[in-house]
Amino acid sequence: MAFLSEEITYHPKRPVFAPILANTMLSKVPGISGAGPSPEKTVFTPILDAELIADGRITSMPIRPNTPTGCPTPATITRAMMQLCGLAPFFINAGLEHPATTPTYHLCGEPGRDPRISDAVPMAGMLYQRGRELGAFLSRLSDMLVIGECVPGGTTTSLCVLRGLGYDARVSSSFIDNPHSLKEEIAGAVLQRIRDEGITEPLDIVAAAGDPMIPAAAGMVEGFSGEIILAGGTQMLSVAALTKARGVRLPKIATTIYVHDDPSANFREIAGAIGLSPVYVDPGFGETGHSGLARYCIGEVKEGMGAGGAMYLARALGHTGSMIRDAIMRTVEAYS
Amino acid sequence: MAFLSEEITYHPKRPVFAPILANTMLSKVPGISGAGPSPEKTVFTPILDAELIADGRITSMPIRPNTPTGCPTPATITRAMMQLCGLAPFFINAGLEHPATTPTYHLCGEPGRDPRISDAVPMAGMLYQRGRELGAFLSRLSDMLVIGECVPGGTTTSLCVLRGLGYDARVSSSFIDNPHSLKEEIAGAVLQRIRDEGITEPLDIVAAAGDPMIPAAAGMVEGFSGEIILAGGTQMLSVAALTKARGVRLPKIATTIYVHDDPSANFREIAGAIGLSPVYVDPGFGETGHSGLARYCIGEVKEGMGAGGAMYLARALGHTGSMIRDAIMRTVEAYS
Repeated sequence: MAFLSEEITYHPKRPVFAPILANTMLSKVPGISGAGPSPEKTVFTPILDAELIADGRITSMPIRPNTPTGCPTPATITRAMMQLCGLAPFFINAGLEHPATTPTYHLCGEPGRDPRISDAVPMAGMLYQRGRELGAFLSRLSDMLVIGECVPGGTTTSLCVLRGLGYDARVSSSFIDNPHSLKEEIAGAVLQRIRDEGITEPLDIVAAAGDPMIPAAAGMVEGFSGEIILAGGTQMLSVAALTKARGVRLPKIATTIYVHDDPSANFREIAGAIGLSPVYVDPGFGETGHSGLARYCIGEVKEGMGAGGAMYLARALGHTGSMIRDAIMRTVEAYS
Repeated sequence: MAFLSEEITYHPKRPVFAPILANTMLSKVPGISGAGPSPEKTVFTPILDAELIADGRITSMPIRPNTPTGCPTPATITRAMMQLCGLAPFFINAGLEHPATTPTYHLCGEPGRDPRISDAVPMAGMLYQRGRELGAFLSRLSDMLVIGECVPGGTTTSLCVLRGLGYDARVSSSFIDNPHSLKEEIAGAVLQRIRDEGITEPLDIVAAAGDPMIPAAAGMVEGFSGEIILAGGTQMLSVAALTKARGVRLPKIATTIYVHDDPSANFREIAGAIGLSPVYVDPGFGETGHSGLARYCIGEVKEGMGAGGAMYLARALGHTGSMIRDAIMRTVEAYS
């Protein structure tokens, strides 16, 4: 199997790798998100992952960057790619419950609320506009913008948004056993509220059902004039679905094979319905001899913090698949 | 009189204009800062000025962007230059007491404390490092970085820092009648504390006596590899004095003629002692027929939010002195 699902056609000169950090209160619902040591603590994961990428270690809490089963957080992969490429990530805070501990570009958003109860992102319009302005700002400086995300619980908000926009989505999960029935229950309640309130405008659907990352990322897609890559799985499909619904350009989407081929979701089908041809990376974690990385192959974690897009970017900057795998192994082993 | 004190030698392709926002608790001392409707409210001025530049109006409070005497805030000039050049500013929050209402790059700092009582910026080392990392990040994207500042009370912290670093500084003020005796009293107390505590390292002197903008800006000077311009008056001298003391490159400094020729300060002398040859802008506000702008010529406001450097940048991007003056007049008249 090739490292990349398609040939690289554009080699950026001044790329920006921008992970968007945000919270949704849905991540605190037990069983929704595997991104954290407990449901309540999932809201800290974007902050801790940003520490890991920026500084090489988690400094504000005494925890290790692995799941309880020893699976390295995807932030480790992103960290390894930033180091390999000599890049620094440009973190964007679209709405976090707690203050970030590493520098972030703050969009003045708020954490996403529980969409079963009330509108999740009342500031969606503002976030879209601020995202567009940031995209336009970066257009003057950069020829390629790779947008990642770290939103625990974000696959569930994306499920709600994709359904709200008319796609018959099933979404991926960081759990091996995708908690479909719980997600379906939530999506059902949210969709019922959207119908009851007669919400039909795409950005209003995101305001009702989404999380702060979605409008911010979609605004950036509209504002940025160079090559744009959404780095992620089902969450990035909801961003692309929003830009499509608004008649804005369709971005490129890059993810891992673990999301692309996830049998519990229908990533490829929904991507196709939106009009996207996703590119995906197969880092071959099964052959590394690392039991934690091998768990990606059986469906744990799969993707996050733009890890797939970060590997794509490293390849576009001229690094080979084996250099990329070696860099990940070196980074992972430093924590093992 | 020429618009610029020297010929432009470098025309940037991808400039970044980055005003650093911060607070020092010294601005709440009555009589220190003219940047706000009352001493207590001076801490909001960076936030309101950023609103004015980003959105063209102050949205979070019902106030007008003028001093009580009708003198337009220098943020109006900066706004006019951003519009003329089609640029968006990149605001940096180095330590504000209240949350910013427009997007800023947040360095995770805290507002500066009163240096008479305790160390003003205990996080100076961290801010320097975060500034250096940001400068390095921007180096990959931009060929010219113009750093401005908005720190009410910042001329007094700069007086303390310059004195602490061995310069016999007298500093400018946004008041027509520069409150020298009050500033001297504060500087005397702070210098005494520095001597008593045996503080001699340059960054430790900034930590003891400065404000969050100073280490952040100095770190950016070290981290950025392209053309760098400190846009401001005496506050930027303290930044340059710190980079010189640390053996880092000397930046260029650009300001207004109102600061450069301020008879109540000794800007030129201290700049010369540091080894700088400042460039200054004479926008000819006395001939515009606008009474508020004319007050700049008799020594009110003088500079701020990188206004002098913003005019320099507009010139470097090919706009003539009269285009620059006209753009400022159009912007000011919209508020009159």
